[in-house]
Amino acid sequence: MRSLNSILDLSVEELDGLIASAKDIIAHPEHYWDACKHKKLATLFFEPSTRTRLSFEAAMLELGGSVIGFSEASSSSAAKGESMADTAKILSCYADIMAIRHPKDGAPYVASRNATVPVINAGDGMHNHPTQTLADLLTISREMGRLNDLTIGFCGDLKYGRTVHSLIEAMSRYPGIKFVLISPEELKLPGFVRFNILEKHHIPYTEVTSLEDALPELDVLYMTRIQRERFDDPWQYERLKDSYVLDTNKMKLAKEKMSVLHPLPRVNEISVAVDDDPRAAYFRQALNGKYMRMALILMLLKEAERNPEREEIDTSNLRYDLVCHNPRCISATEQELPQIFRTTDKAADIHRCIYCEQRA
Amino acid sequence: MRSLNSILDLSVEELDGLIASAKDIIAHPEHYWDACKHKKLATLFFEPSTRTRLSFEAAMLELGGSVIGFSEASSSSAAKGESMADTAKILSCYADIMAIRHPKDGAPYVASRNATVPVINAGDGMHNHPTQTLADLLTISREMGRLNDLTIGFCGDLKYGRTVHSLIEAMSRYPGIKFVLISPEELKLPGFVRFNILEKHHIPYTEVTSLEDALPELDVLYMTRIQRERFDDPWQYERLKDSYVLDTNKMKLAKEKMSVLHPLPRVNEISVAVDDDPRAAYFRQALNGKYMRMALILMLLKEAERNPEREEIDTSNLRYDLVCHNPRCISATEQELPQIFRTTDKAADIHRCIYCEQRA
Amino acid sequence: MRSLNSILDLSVEELDGLIASAKDIIAHPEHYWDACKHKKLATLFFEPSTRTRLSFEAAMLELGGSVIGFSEASSSSAAKGESMADTAKILSCYADIMAIRHPKDGAPYVASRNATVPVINAGDGMHNHPTQTLADLLTISREMGRLNDLTIGFCGDLKYGRTVHSLIEAMSRYPGIKFVLISPEELKLPGFVRFNILEKHHIPYTEVTSLEDALPELDVLYMTRIQRERFDDPWQYERLKDSYVLDTNKMKLAKEKMSVLHPLPRVNEISVAVDDDPRAAYFRQALNGKYMRMALILMLLKEAERNPEREEIDTSNLRYDLVCHNPRCISATEQELPQIFRTTDKAADIHRCIYCEQRA
Repeated sequence: MRSLNSILDLSVEELDGLIASAKDIIAHPEHYWDACKHKKLATLFFEPSTRTRLSFEAAMLELGGSVIGFSEASSSSAAKGESMADTAKILSCYADIMAIRHPKDGAPYVASRNATVPVINAGDGMHNHPTQTLADLLTISREMGRLNDLTIGFCGDLKYGRTVHSLIEAMSRYPGIKFVLISPEELKLPGFVRFNILEKHHIPYTEVTSLEDALPELDVLYMTRIQRERFDDPWQYERLKDSYVLDTNKMKLAKEKMSVLHPLPRVNEISVAVDDDPRAAYFRQALNGKYMRMALILMLLKEAERNPEREEIDTSNLRYDLVCHNPRCISATEQELPQIFRTTDKAADIHRCIYCEQRA
Repeated sequence: MRSLNSILDLSVEELDGLIASAKDIIAHPEHYWDACKHKKLATLFFEPSTRTRLSFEAAMLELGGSVIGFSEASSSSAAKGESMADTAKILSCYADIMAIRHPKDGAPYVASRNATVPVINAGDGMHNHPTQTLADLLTISREMGRLNDLTIGFCGDLKYGRTVHSLIEAMSRYPGIKFVLISPEELKLPGFVRFNILEKHHIPYTEVTSLEDALPELDVLYMTRIQRERFDDPWQYERLKDSYVLDTNKMKLAKEKMSVLHPLPRVNEISVAVDDDPRAAYFRQALNGKYMRMALILMLLKEAERNPEREEIDTSNLRYDLVCHNPRCISATEQELPQIFRTTDKAADIHRCIYCEQRA
Repeated sequence: MRSLNSILDLSVEELDGLIASAKDIIAHPEHYWDACKHKKLATLFFEPSTRTRLSFEAAMLELGGSVIGFSEASSSSAAKGESMADTAKILSCYADIMAIRHPKDGAPYVASRNATVPVINAGDGMHNHPTQTLADLLTISREMGRLNDLTIGFCGDLKYGRTVHSLIEAMSRYPGIKFVLISPEELKLPGFVRFNILEKHHIPYTEVTSLEDALPELDVLYMTRIQRERFDDPWQYERLKDSYVLDTNKMKLAKEKMSVLHPLPRVNEISVAVDDDPRAAYFRQALNGKYMRMALILMLLKEAERNPEREEIDTSNLRYDLVCHNPRCISATEQELPQIFRTTDKAADIHRCIYCEQRA
């Protein structure tokens, strides 16, 4: 039995398999109408995220399965102080697979270590959101016809955007990828992503502040929202925000065959007028997310049938003598959860919490 | 592809067709068990309305379809500032038809202009609630055996009761209808309904303040709730409220073959003791609502299959130079939504917002 | 047609039938895949209780039925002042059976007197929670192989724990049962349970304050949570709480064949380390709850089909001249609900409210 916590839990071969599976679902939806008959998905959303939740629910229903769950923590036993581990154990009695959204980093991982059914991370705090990345990958594959040899621009908030970090990680494993990182100085890609992914794997990238300058060379433009509250100085935000808004004028600078992605919801960072441009792929991206979730549910349920035992945790390089200071980490609140770190770089003395992956 | 925004979107022939369809469903529910197999209804309730939502959900399930959705805005992406248009586009990826309840006038209409699947207005602010009117019509048809040649009394809050206005509009298209409007002075039917519907179509009506005086002549009595907050003077409310409460004593004044309707929920405007009277039709009305929603879902899905293109907007008599001042109008909050008015009466210089239908 | 309000609504023969039915479901789940096809369960949760709700929903889905409902009152018409009676009448139009959770004692009973479909009490205030007791009974039966000749310890809050009172009532009807009541002085079993059940039926019991002293003789240990807010003196709580925490050390004192139950959620009254002990039955208990709910839904739907008429209320010994002073009683808020008491002990002049069962 396997769970999905991070996009890196999947090998490139598995990603390609999921993409192929999603394309087969798109081509022959009727082949899958009974694929999950008598199976139940539990959508455990400890914070609201309507689109993600409904995407999972639509996915399961289109596979012939059914759905139980909740859409915010106030309706859940967590409000009575139940631990994530207990919730996972109990929900395993009711459902065959779970999708968990949680404000705490690492909560779905803790669930996956206690559930007796597969757990899908549907977004945990500032940490991971792998099914968004699956949607992004299928979209690039369908829009551009390939996942290699692409120049991909990321625009907006590259500092806090977990979907950005995750897609950079995933795309870095394909050949011929070049990144253009477009953001204000305040919201540049964090050092750990640059060092651990881009530089480690020798991926070419440039950092720029002007969307207009970058646009002409891009095959893919991944837009994200810039939030006012990320700036210490509100004037700085007011001065900057418009230059990162994609409108029909800026679209004129782009290649004829380019693809605009956005994880949605969009507020005003893409003008509504751009929606009619054939290069605007963000609503098709939402549709692709449903198909990739279908492919993922199928894969995890098949794997659980083949091998009902939970995957063993990799026990190498673990340390039990450090304490996680990330206030958003599930280890800060979960009852009787041991503090565990993994040494990810012995030479540099880097140890990361196994739940939230923050450094000690 | 068609949507249902207002009861007037349906011709009398279509209304009769829906009523006939609902009666066939009642007679042979088993014929419809697979009618919507592999179809999904999205119930997007941006404000709670349990009975309406569950009626839609029961309707879809009895047609063999399935349901996704949310029951209040706090669980929705709207809380993150997503526009109605974007929500409609994304939900079109997940569902085959939508029912939308929204506190803003015109929100389901905006959704229907952006969705690629049919949208049913399940109640928008103070504006429309067409499926309630469908329930009312089937109830009158089943209880009285006809929709023509009836004296229909409306009692209570005729000023703000959108279900009252909507049923008056719908019934005005049948021959031989007479209305008795029973309300306190403060809550009389607004002028625009009297002028635009009753007087324009020469429908006979009387306005009275006494329920007891009106009762003997009625074939149908449509009760509504009088809310304390509608009165400037609380003493006025206290003085009046009991005279608009239907109890077993007042029922003695009514015809033996009369039908009492109420959109529900009832608070105390109909005494619980009246429930056992065979003329009390309001719980059967709730059941009829489910059957009409089934007939409507079937009709709209069939229409969408026949013609997947969105109906063109009628572009005659549109004006783009006016601004809507209705604070409840969706145009007050929806991002990048153009202000559009339609000239409904050139001679009288009357222009109405196409979203909320308020005058400029 | 029957409803389930209290565990005592079921005879011992019926309980045994439900347990046998649940065991058959466990052995042959595929026999039941279509048992409730075209049937709908409404889960009406006027206060959140995720585990109970999801257990009911999973149960109905595993029987091939479908589910509608709500998970908290804010999404319900109750927020608009609708009575329980009206809600029950309307929901009878949408569903074939209902499970109702409500903060008011007696609310599901009022619903069952107005619904035209069976109503299951899924927990009402401090009053009843019969399906939890069904889960407890199946667990004892499966873990111990019998429901008779057992020494059962109840530990923790025996004063307010409605699951404790209910299981004591249910088990008191089996032969050879002995109870050990383990609690601090402040949280002892209330007199009315001791007198009306234990002493009336001559059930042997002992009252002790030490869990450690009691453990060696127990066949079943039913743990409950001690809540800080039950104590006038916080120091008293601090002094006591640890002695009622079950940990691996205390488990060493227990029989090798003993079974630990807990209604869940658990906060810290059972150490997580105990979960791995084969005697820890509380997660299997959650699973058993689902199977008993399946058996119950099947039984009530079959009964409703056989006899669609609502069961007559037992009108003997009723009194209409008393007023219930329990602020949590549904009669305190429900509109036009008559005050009715039943004389349960003429000699002792004891009259109990038929809704909440509190004494006049």
